[in-house]
Amino acid sequence: MVRIAEIDVDPAQLPAYTALLTEEIAASIGREPGVMMLHAVSDKERPHHIRLLEVYASRAAYETHIQTPHFLKYKTGTLAMVTSLQLIEVDPIFLASK
Amino acid sequence: MVRIAEIDVDPAQLPAYTALLTEEIAASIGREPGVMMLHAVSDKERPHHIRLLEVYASRAAYETHIQTPHFLKYKTGTLAMVTSLQLIEVDPIFLASK
Repeated sequence: MVRIAEIDVDPAQLPAYTALLTEEIAASIGREPGVMMLHAVSDKERPHHIRLLEVYASRAAYETHIQTPHFLKYKTGTLAMVTSLQLIEVDPIFLASK
Repeated sequence: MVRIAEIDVDPAQLPAYTALLTEEIAASIGREPGVMMLHAVSDKERPHHIRLLEVYASRAAYETHIQTPHFLKYKTGTLAMVTSLQLIEVDPIFLASK
């Protein structure tokens, strides 16, 4: 399961948001066998505009992910920071890294 | 250097485009030490809308990349297939995979 999230963050809260997101990604990749890839980037021209590329081994792995304590900490902790959230379901064409 | 490309492809030419893109990514990751990551996905609802997450070791690695025969084959071969191309410079927040 592959997804893109496009997130707008209140600029005043961007450092706090980034800290929570980084902690959440590290915990997810480190502890969850079904979380394969979480890449987060911010636009150079609009740093409060965040994009995530998320790859899960399966939909079940994603359902497990969103019930973990580290995800719930991120989700509840950033609720008041996120001004817009768009989730885009995608299909992989080719995912390659080294 | 990290970048996102958002590409619209003529739907009628999507299979041919995808074949050229896949060949180009495989060659770039396989042959170029400075190409660290190339992830290509297509929207489930608009499969002709393609997004790429591109990670290069440096700007010099990117400049080398766009002069390689495999990139030039892709670029010239897909010129008539691409109806829109947006390049977005981004900063990594956290890139994690396994």
